[in-house]
Amino acid sequence: MTVNSQSSHHALASNSVLKDIAIVKIGGNIVDNPEALETFLADFHRLEGRKLLVHGGGVMASKMAKQLGIETKMVDGRRITDAETLKLVTMVYAGWINKSIVASLQKQGCYALGLSGADADTIPAKRRSPEPIDFGFVGDPDANDINTNFISLLIENKITPVFCAITHDGNGSLLNTNADTVAYSLASALSKNYRTTLYYCFEKEGVLKDVDDPQSRIASMDRAEYEAYKNEGIIAGGMIPKLDNSFKAIENGVSEVIILHAKNLLTKQGTRLNL
Amino acid sequence: MTVNSQSSHHALASNSVLKDIAIVKIGGNIVDNPEALETFLADFHRLEGRKLLVHGGGVMASKMAKQLGIETKMVDGRRITDAETLKLVTMVYAGWINKSIVASLQKQGCYALGLSGADADTIPAKRRSPEPIDFGFVGDPDANDINTNFISLLIENKITPVFCAITHDGNGSLLNTNADTVAYSLASALSKNYRTTLYYCFEKEGVLKDVDDPQSRIASMDRAEYEAYKNEGIIAGGMIPKLDNSFKAIENGVSEVIILHAKNLLTKQGTRLNL
Repeated sequence: MTVNSQSSHHALASNSVLKDIAIVKIGGNIVDNPEALETFLADFHRLEGRKLLVHGGGVMASKMAKQLGIETKMVDGRRITDAETLKLVTMVYAGWINKSIVASLQKQGCYALGLSGADADTIPAKRRSPEPIDFGFVGDPDANDINTNFISLLIENKITPVFCAITHDGNGSLLNTNADTVAYSLASALSKNYRTTLYYCFEKEGVLKDVDDPQSRIASMDRAEYEAYKNEGIIAGGMIPKLDNSFKAIENGVSEVIILHAKNLLTKQGTRLNL
Repeated sequence: MTVNSQSSHHALASNSVLKDIAIVKIGGNIVDNPEALETFLADFHRLEGRKLLVHGGGVMASKMAKQLGIETKMVDGRRITDAETLKLVTMVYAGWINKSIVASLQKQGCYALGLSGADADTIPAKRRSPEPIDFGFVGDPDANDINTNFISLLIENKITPVFCAITHDGNGSLLNTNADTVAYSLASALSKNYRTTLYYCFEKEGVLKDVDDPQSRIASMDRAEYEAYKNEGIIAGGMIPKLDNSFKAIENGVSEVIILHAKNLLTKQGTRLNL
């Protein structure tokens, strides 16, 4: 599978008619800060060429859960999504955050369209097995099932899709999905038709050797270097799933992954990953 | 304006190549009843030909407001939408209800796509003047501004749009909008390109002479008969804005408006309006 994906990647990469697309993921901490979000969206609008946005929103969901008296249960940094929590995150992610971002982008002249993975069956997902941990209504998309025809139809009609991280199982259930995973899955799927760059934007300068020192950014990293940093304990915690997703994306045909501070979207200064 | 619309209507109506489209509006009482909603959505899926759905959700919004400790203020049956309420209704309408409906329709094989009026600038609206009553973040769409090109692009690609009643002002603000008005505006706008039938589905058999007697349904009504019923006090209350919208829709080129019980969508038994 990896071999097939890679050779397909190389065949596509050498095809000069492939159009570029930027898949930009913005994290929950920026989304929760109105000023930082507004600045980021202005930059996103200025980013030239084909693009789509994926947004998180976990910080706001946790606040709203508190207001509603719903207990937030997390295991390994991932939310346990019972029926009440599914309703909550769908309201917050697909409702308030998604539509607020779309309205802001429209104001700037960016022809945005908000989507969940249920809309036009863009991102079907499989509900995660209850073993070893029952995460509840949580789904994992398969990049092969993503409705790239419809997403391309939008993009070729100058529409900028804005995805929240809600997917569905095709059997009537919405599913809560990790926003990094949504971005990685979309980037992987679209790399069949586009030369794809995946931007993970968050509140740090990139992958840092010392999380408290923004100057310690790793400018670029290949898989072997990543493994070495992991073994030395320099890279740990929440950065590991993000980097695992990133390298999987590159294996699936994504041309480049850049992990960067949201304010650096236009300079693209961050940590560049390659195989 | 009316004259132009009418002559345009007649020119279109006589054009046999115009395709049919059904604009179906489903009210908040049905949306709030999971079994009734499921049955309705199955019928909606079976409705043949081009179609789109507009849904309400006020009942659920009021319940959620209570849970969040937000006071629901109504004037003349219309919600006063302060900033907190705008967030609430956007979460409930554009988030939970819209995506639940889309996921249910997808389950049945209906290729549904959920939209607010901000998405792809489908329904721009003007914030209502604060005089004589300040309704807050409430908007009224102008049928002439509706993005019929994009809606037609979806429909001609076999996608079924599902609209919630949230619009935007084009300047970054979302706006709460009456769902009947959204349906009437969409039907009016689309009647330029389609032969349009507007279905108002709710929890009564149609327009009733006696609201407590389902047998008292008025089978059909023209404008003169409507005025007579109003003068006699037989038609009153919340039915008046619905009927005013309906007759305006017909003046704007909509071929037929049917007000009916949600369970009768396929038999189309209800109150038929014509000029």
